[in-house]
Amino acid sequence: MSNVHHFYPGLDGVVAAETKISFLDTVQGEIVIKGFDLIELSKKYGYLDIVHLLLEDKLPNQEEKNRLENKLKSNYEIQVALYEVFKLLPEQTHPMDALRTGISFISGYDEKIDDRSPDVNKERAYRLLGTVPNIVANSYQILTKKEPVHPDKDLSYSANFFYMITSRKPTAIQEEIFDLSLVLYSEHEMPNSTFTSRVIASTQSDLYGALTGAVASLKGNLHGGANEAVMHMLLQAKTVEQFEKLLENKLLNKEKIMGFGHRVYMKKIDPRALMMKEALKQLSDIQGDDRLYRMCEAGEKVLEREKGLYPNLDYYAAPVYWMLGIPIPLYTPIFFGARTVGLCTHVMEQHDNNHLFRPRVNYIGERHALSK
Amino acid sequence: MSNVHHFYPGLDGVVAAETKISFLDTVQGEIVIKGFDLIELSKKYGYLDIVHLLLEDKLPNQEEKNRLENKLKSNYEIQVALYEVFKLLPEQTHPMDALRTGISFISGYDEKIDDRSPDVNKERAYRLLGTVPNIVANSYQILTKKEPVHPDKDLSYSANFFYMITSRKPTAIQEEIFDLSLVLYSEHEMPNSTFTSRVIASTQSDLYGALTGAVASLKGNLHGGANEAVMHMLLQAKTVEQFEKLLENKLLNKEKIMGFGHRVYMKKIDPRALMMKEALKQLSDIQGDDRLYRMCEAGEKVLEREKGLYPNLDYYAAPVYWMLGIPIPLYTPIFFGARTVGLCTHVMEQHDNNHLFRPRVNYIGERHALSK
Repeated sequence: MSNVHHFYPGLDGVVAAETKISFLDTVQGEIVIKGFDLIELSKKYGYLDIVHLLLEDKLPNQEEKNRLENKLKSNYEIQVALYEVFKLLPEQTHPMDALRTGISFISGYDEKIDDRSPDVNKERAYRLLGTVPNIVANSYQILTKKEPVHPDKDLSYSANFFYMITSRKPTAIQEEIFDLSLVLYSEHEMPNSTFTSRVIASTQSDLYGALTGAVASLKGNLHGGANEAVMHMLLQAKTVEQFEKLLENKLLNKEKIMGFGHRVYMKKIDPRALMMKEALKQLSDIQGDDRLYRMCEAGEKVLEREKGLYPNLDYYAAPVYWMLGIPIPLYTPIFFGARTVGLCTHVMEQHDNNHLFRPRVNYIGERHALSK
Repeated sequence: MSNVHHFYPGLDGVVAAETKISFLDTVQGEIVIKGFDLIELSKKYGYLDIVHLLLEDKLPNQEEKNRLENKLKSNYEIQVALYEVFKLLPEQTHPMDALRTGISFISGYDEKIDDRSPDVNKERAYRLLGTVPNIVANSYQILTKKEPVHPDKDLSYSANFFYMITSRKPTAIQEEIFDLSLVLYSEHEMPNSTFTSRVIASTQSDLYGALTGAVASLKGNLHGGANEAVMHMLLQAKTVEQFEKLLENKLLNKEKIMGFGHRVYMKKIDPRALMMKEALKQLSDIQGDDRLYRMCEAGEKVLEREKGLYPNLDYYAAPVYWMLGIPIPLYTPIFFGARTVGLCTHVMEQHDNNHLFRPRVNYIGERHALSK
């Protein structure tokens, strides 16, 4: 019989897995990804490098990177039936729900669905990485009554992702900043969505199921949905003064403010937020419009002063995506697209050294005898 | 900053939630459901009583039960678009994956999708309970190239579920035993699928997402997939002697044997298995064929003798479903159908008193400095 241990609300601080993938080192202030500091990586490497690092355990040389890019490109297209499914979606379907349905649907094309061996899982991960941007983009294009945008294999992975979403080819700087956002979102230890995917995978269920659950998790506005919530606040406020007031009012009403604080960082700024803040500055300078930048800076000060809270990645990713011309309902699906590689890596690690997740409860209800 | 606690592989014994819903009391040997012993309940009450108990916190009187049944019946039908989606599914799609896609898809019809208040969640749960049997049955009918079976509102909830699955109206005893299986599968504390749904719901994500994740979890053969695995063993063996040999060989090869043992019960028989064993005896007597019953009994003895392991519900549910003429690929989807009520209840409890699940990890990888 199991020993029942303490109740940890939200499993706060409980170690749920041993991992070689990533780690938030709050002592040294580092986001460790396969041994490297994510922020350092993000200054020198692009998204495909991170994909290679996560799935192949090393930073790629140029040849390896080309091979990876070609592998992903060969999976850019989605099946015709999937476009048909998107056309059948009820009009008011949430883009994250459309994405969830799409990922769930394509499991049926996997001829080795019952095989969870590392090699097959890795090939599956590459296929998914090639496909997910298309599902993200075209489920939304079709939901919003537009024509699907077919992938352009002449573009880089990130440029093509950007292109399918916006129907515009990015400038060099737009491509660079979008790629940076994918790097920053790629992997981040054990947030709820990663945990969800490992919990599911621990029953020996497959990668599609684990990712489907992760989309569902990421949709919540206490998680991935936060980046969209931030943008709605910024749009509602319009000016620096109004944004300060809006935040102060929310604090007065004890409302949760999205984009601030993080279970693990707590009293420190999320270093990824700083990178996105710089990108926002860059876009502001180029576009000659620093309104959002000034609003965000002012908001940052309000939360630091009033609550000692610091921005997380979502807080600065939102205005960056706005200035890149990305539709708000795609902010969270893009987050998922970027995180797909991290999720796949975690599911593979879970399958390779599995222990079924099965916690207990504290029963605080009544007990009755059945009298009738 | 969070304190990091011990590593609990699989969260074994860790209390992940306080709940008023259910509890495996291993000391008194009781499966407590809303205060009552599930086995006692199962002897006197049917599935709709349990649904009412879980969602309304009391056993219903006849009028309340009729009202509940009518409410579910008004949700038996599914949208035409959903049949179209099922037609588009790749031929080799796993029935659990079809079910997952179906549940993910219908979220788009929910006009109050962003509302997580208790009343709206409860109405949503009733709609889902009405609809899920249809999704279970007709995704499979269509996948196997059969015509969909439209629900028959003249039948009881369980009889209609049975009818849509088998295209046959059940006899009184078949209906009773199928209903009993739904009761026994209805709710069971914090197995992986229930945990998955609460983890997802804790981001403030919605009921559809939580259920989608639960289907993915239940598909794994360390969880719901076990009932199908048991039936395949029984069919492979054919006789008592061959079944004993098959199990002994598996033990020699240190293979995991499905249908035995349970993280929480461990050294005791799952009392639900006993109920299903009796039902199997009943069906054997009626059909004048006790081969499966004798095989199961013999297998039970092998595992007790060799490993001190006892059967769980899946072990006896599998041959019962077989003798009811239910296609094997639907055993796990039916488990999900029965568990939907428990899952909905847990998601509602999570939403009503939420704490985001966000555990930590032990990083056991290397650390590198970036030199380039």
